[in-house]
Amino acid sequence: MCVPGCQDVVMRRLSRRGFFKGLGAVGAGAAVFTAFPPPRPALAQGASFSKVVDLTHALGPEFPTFFGKPQLSIETNFSFDKDGFNMNTWTLVEHTGTHLDAPIHFSKDGADAASIDLGQLVVPLAVVDVKEKAASDPDYQLTADDLKAWESANGDLPSGGCVAMNSGWADFVTTDKFRNVDADGGMHFPGFHLDATMYMMEKGVVGMAVDTLSLDFGASKDFAAHYAWLPSGRWGMECVANLDSVPATGATIVVGAPKVKGATGGISRLFALV
Amino acid sequence: MCVPGCQDVVMRRLSRRGFFKGLGAVGAGAAVFTAFPPPRPALAQGASFSKVVDLTHALGPEFPTFFGKPQLSIETNFSFDKDGFNMNTWTLVEHTGTHLDAPIHFSKDGADAASIDLGQLVVPLAVVDVKEKAASDPDYQLTADDLKAWESANGDLPSGGCVAMNSGWADFVTTDKFRNVDADGGMHFPGFHLDATMYMMEKGVVGMAVDTLSLDFGASKDFAAHYAWLPSGRWGMECVANLDSVPATGATIVVGAPKVKGATGGISRLFALV
Repeated sequence: MCVPGCQDVVMRRLSRRGFFKGLGAVGAGAAVFTAFPPPRPALAQGASFSKVVDLTHALGPEFPTFFGKPQLSIETNFSFDKDGFNMNTWTLVEHTGTHLDAPIHFSKDGADAASIDLGQLVVPLAVVDVKEKAASDPDYQLTADDLKAWESANGDLPSGGCVAMNSGWADFVTTDKFRNVDADGGMHFPGFHLDATMYMMEKGVVGMAVDTLSLDFGASKDFAAHYAWLPSGRWGMECVANLDSVPATGATIVVGAPKVKGATGGISRLFALV
Repeated sequence: MCVPGCQDVVMRRLSRRGFFKGLGAVGAGAAVFTAFPPPRPALAQGASFSKVVDLTHALGPEFPTFFGKPQLSIETNFSFDKDGFNMNTWTLVEHTGTHLDAPIHFSKDGADAASIDLGQLVVPLAVVDVKEKAASDPDYQLTADDLKAWESANGDLPSGGCVAMNSGWADFVTTDKFRNVDADGGMHFPGFHLDATMYMMEKGVVGMAVDTLSLDFGASKDFAAHYAWLPSGRWGMECVANLDSVPATGATIVVGAPKVKGATGGISRLFALV
């Protein structure tokens, strides 16, 4: 998700924005963490629901990946006909399918997948629909203005909650348009703009979800959303499904993140309680 | 979890019990499926909750396994200092840590992990405490009588729900007592008795959870609970944590099973909504 040095570009860019004025020599990556620590509720929040929506794509070796190569293989260890039961071994890159980005994915010492606070994993969900804009511009970046428009219609973004981008891209998951590669090998799909990322941090949002392969738009050169968001102790979720089946506000997202020690993310089961 | 031919032993044993009288030449495994198909609600059930309990153990390469050998290794592909981000690849046997047993784990053509009905994954949870019996007998099998005693105190087992055995074994997960191997290599930990398994099927229960390494007790030679339960289209969950923090009745279990096509189970994130 990066080339060497790209985090420096983002850190300089963040510094120029003046968010961290007065923090002196502290690196901007660390400064983001200091300036906008995520809320840490002692317990996950309660809610009521009458139905469950599965926000998870089914995953197989053919699932599209950011790097363009398969990231899952399955080897049969035991088979029913021969052994009386079936069992397999997976070889799996953590960032495959509907999957978590843990803070440590883009930081030196952030929380791993097993260490994310339980209070961050069952939280209110806001869904921001940018399908029309993304349909006309596959490089569309969801902006702070999109979030403010959402707030005008739905009330404040949920502090301690998750904001999901519904770009319509989940519909393309079985086609080449999901990665949407140009003649030069560059990808074109929507993502979160840095302005929106910073606005969500100011509002105390803890989770960022996208229906594409990356929190940043496909053509990003600096991974600005990743570098601002994850080192601050927040989580991301990529390749989310079925956001059309969830209301703009009022649902609760249940983040079935893998509780694997040292993991930088990993395949997850996501549900929305509506 | 089996030696060749053991399913035949179970099938004969089941046939002898007379549950499948009149089904003629149909194998008992298939007969169970016919006799007690699981409820298939169109949508998962609603509920209210005020707190969330994490029923998942943190998983690392050292986590104890049924076969006694490590079943997870993690290889670093990219590191923050060198590459600007962290990413790993896992090599993982499906039945490791807090994990799902999908119907196909012990059947020829049952549902895989990705195909389990959504309506089976967010369901009422009954917790049956057998800690005292298990403390005095590590080979204890939770019986139909234990379930009937639970019902006398708490009402009917939840049709369409999950029944979890709380044997106290989760406390031993970091010690040799979790596998509790004798001088001959046999394991000794509690599990579900076939009588209890059949009773749960009659009652329409869809999920069976244990805080040990197997649905069957460790000394089982025939895997009777596995062979009765899973081929009927029901799921199992092994190595469940924190059942002491969940009431006997009234909670909802959220089964964050991995949605991996062809998988016979896999690492899961389990929550109880209380």
